[in-house]
Amino acid sequence: MVKYRKEDSTSYALGTTLVIELLKRKKERAVRLYISPKQNKDSTYETLLSLAKEAKIPVIQNNEKIFKDLSGKDNCMAICEFKKITETLEENENHVCLVNPSNLGNLGTIIRCMAGFHFLSLAIIRPACDVFDPKTVRASMGALFDVKVALYDSFADYQKEFPNHALYPFMLQAKTPLKKANKQYPATLIMGNEATGLPRDFLNVGTPLLIPHTDFIDSLNLDNATAIALYEFADETF
Amino acid sequence: MVKYRKEDSTSYALGTTLVIELLKRKKERAVRLYISPKQNKDSTYETLLSLAKEAKIPVIQNNEKIFKDLSGKDNCMAICEFKKITETLEENENHVCLVNPSNLGNLGTIIRCMAGFHFLSLAIIRPACDVFDPKTVRASMGALFDVKVALYDSFADYQKEFPNHALYPFMLQAKTPLKKANKQYPATLIMGNEATGLPRDFLNVGTPLLIPHTDFIDSLNLDNATAIALYEFADETF
Repeated sequence: MVKYRKEDSTSYALGTTLVIELLKRKKERAVRLYISPKQNKDSTYETLLSLAKEAKIPVIQNNEKIFKDLSGKDNCMAICEFKKITETLEENENHVCLVNPSNLGNLGTIIRCMAGFHFLSLAIIRPACDVFDPKTVRASMGALFDVKVALYDSFADYQKEFPNHALYPFMLQAKTPLKKANKQYPATLIMGNEATGLPRDFLNVGTPLLIPHTDFIDSLNLDNATAIALYEFADETF
Repeated sequence: MVKYRKEDSTSYALGTTLVIELLKRKKERAVRLYISPKQNKDSTYETLLSLAKEAKIPVIQNNEKIFKDLSGKDNCMAICEFKKITETLEENENHVCLVNPSNLGNLGTIIRCMAGFHFLSLAIIRPACDVFDPKTVRASMGALFDVKVALYDSFADYQKEFPNHALYPFMLQAKTPLKKANKQYPATLIMGNEATGLPRDFLNVGTPLLIPHTDFIDSLNLDNATAIALYEFADETF
């Protein structure tokens, strides 16, 4: 049985839309393309074949089992195996730094939102869930192929590499509301774990910011909070 | 087998945290409390019993099957059945109006975010997924018990009932960016379906607004877009 594991050097884009995004945007990462024996020989099929040819990767069309193993969905007609690659983030660009994220779906949604607001560099502080898990790739709707990802063992390691970034940890204990933030760039928006938020010592890092909310809730959902932070810090000129 | 169905007049809050929220905030809606035979006789147990007594509802402690039927999770120790109630929305408060929402989890997250930004009235235009589904209740993390919900068969029906609300449909085809919006209150933030957005004729309704994003993505996730809209329209004085 084919099963994705965190320690593998490759992962999988599941579904035709995602596969096409991958082959169009990051063909150099593609390893091989599986097309379901159930896929009609239509224009989508031709597109897949021609993109695979451009990417110079083999096409396997008789492996029905891998679709059952990896997707389990009847409507998944294409799977592309791709190399997991972390990169060096850009020195002069804005970053998001996620400290110990644990939810695969949330992580994908955050990456989609980052691409939407032109934050194309993501630092992840371990321990963390696997950014290359097929669930995260799917939730990102392909945006993972537009965003550079770097992994660090500690926030100190990240900070050492990018000493010139203005740091904005988002914390419920912060005093400055987001709308009053003195925004400086390049900025790093720092978000904590879904359940526990950022450790208290981030109050001594850069300018901690608060997204004020009512007492009806304990906290905003992590991906909603990140979306709001990205919206507020994004350049408005798309 | 006990199974929740959309046409039932009651639904279920699954898990101790959610049950306690329900019994504290909306005890008049509670019908009966199930406590798992596996629940320890600890302080949580005492809290559940005392809240059930205050709510004057029966407590069933020997029905292990309902936990399997409704939750399937080993750590679900309490279930509270509650009456599904729609209400009349407040004339002078801000509203969110969701047109044909289809994702149960998204809907719950949106309700949580609404409560966080003090938008306590939700209009839903049918067809729509079931706001009282246990999955939505859970994703709202109990915020559903703080938000009034009204269902309508058409947007025209909603508009007739609230002629004085300033209407803001969020659309990719809109010209005015959210940050330039002339905000008037009471406001109704109108959001479309996850996949298809709002029908084009909403361009003729109130002041259509755009949350600008890059071409890297087709659209923002519905709950992220709603979170950003709520953040921007919320009173800052919580």
